Amino acid sequence: MVKLSDIATRPPADVDEKKIKKLTDDYQERIGDLNEILRAEQKHSLLIILQGMDGSGKDGAVKNVFKDCTHFNLSVYAFKKPTEIEFGHDFLWRVHQQAPSKGDIKIFNRSHYEDILIQRVHKWIDEDRVQKRMDAINAFENLLVFDNNTTILKFYLHISYEQQEKELQERIDEADKRWKHNDGDWEQRKHWDEYMRCYEYAINKSEIPWDVVPVDVRWYRDYIIAKKVCETLEAMNLQYPK
Amino acid sequence: MVKLSDIATRPPADVDEKKIKKLTDDYQERIGDLNEILRAEQKHSLLIILQGMDGSGKDGAVKNVFKDCTHFNLSVYAFKKPTEIEFGHDFLWRVHQQAPSKGDIKIFNRSHYEDILIQRVHKWIDEDRVQKRMDAINAFENLLVFDNNTTILKFYLHISYEQQEKELQERIDEADKRWKHNDGDWEQRKHWDEYMRCYEYAINKSEIPWDVVPVDVRWYRDYIIAKKVCETLEAMNLQYPK
Repeated sequence: MVKLSDIATRPPADVDEKKIKKLTDDYQERIGDLNEILRAEQKHSLLIILQGMDGSGKDGAVKNVFKDCTHFNLSVYAFKKPTEIEFGHDFLWRVHQQAPSKGDIKIFNRSHYEDILIQRVHKWIDEDRVQKRMDAINAFENLLVFDNNTTILKFYLHISYEQQEKELQERIDEADKRWKHNDGDWEQRKHWDEYMRCYEYAINKSEIPWDVVPVDVRWYRDYIIAKKVCETLEAMNLQYPK
Repeated sequence: MVKLSDIATRPPADVDEKKIKKLTDDYQERIGDLNEILRAEQKHSLLIILQGMDGSGKDGAVKNVFKDCTHFNLSVYAFKKPTEIEFGHDFLWRVHQQAPSKGDIKIFNRSHYEDILIQRVHKWIDEDRVQKRMDAINAFENLLVFDNNTTILKFYLHISYEQQEKELQERIDEADKRWKHNDGDWEQRKHWDEYMRCYEYAINKSEIPWDVVPVDVRWYRDYIIAKKVCETLEAMNLQYPK
């Protein structure tokens, strides 16, 4: 059982920043190479799910970890408030459409988990539906794995309450971050404890495991994610077709 | 446990053809009216899955049962051999996209069940995948029900081996049916017993039940399906919005 308050949001004290950054560079480059082979081989697909509170650095993680990847077969899909057409369907309808095809890496910036996070925190859905959705999520993710050779990585970007305040404040203070400012983020912040409870539920009920990533220090966030992505791609034993 | 060989493919001997046809007419008309309210209310959706051997009369059933329905919110989707893009995804990817939205009736002419029928009969997939796909089908159908207020009706059009021969032969002999002739249908006919075994598996493993419809006599087929569809729509207690 994961308890988020027991998990550090900062790197271990003895970590060597310079060394970590060098390792991250190497992982990024290698991810770029492996993505090329994944694209050529057309046998595997990789789905990366990023979740975390506002200001936890989902965008920055994408920007850094995948900077050496071509765009041909790697794309990011950001899930926003559902459209009217999407609301006319079950919550996974729009998500399933975005699943990666063989040879592709797809990054979900937020995901179907929002449907048991923000919707649960604000009680837009009842607890019975939360449970049924969690079962449906497990079935959906398993389907991608067994029927399309998809590997799924799920990262919870673990930020502290204090660090979030700094991040959100920067969006007000710094001109090049101001486009990201949103009053709603401060509003959601008021429900912090309830969000933590709902994240813990999602993490603990998931059949495909999550990685909880300490993100208060951004270069350490990038290292943890890049390492995991790289090792996952290596384990696929990707081969150029003969 | 359904055993297809124990179920009649013809109507009971004492059935009054004239009376049945009159009832069917009434059901058809009522279905047309209820479809209008379904469309106006925008709260429910209806998914109708039609499966059966070649010549079992799926097209005819659609044509007759829904003849009084407007096209605005009712449509038929015929699942054919997957395209290259569809093959790049799990088997439910293309199916989920076609799920009905609230206020709609969607008819699947063949469906995701083909992925555990023709594919299983010809051993294109192994038995482990058949079981996993069956679990995925149950999860998928349950999702539509609990998360989008969808009602799912599944009709297996039960034709006899003898009647199928007549139907397929008519496609050769009659000019206006010749466009439906396909050598492949005669080829699939050779695997009859194996198809029956796979249909029985699908019917018995489904969480949402099937209706097995005797179709050797077409007016009786229409009656059985129209009655079920009409009663299902009535049970929704559809209301025009105020």
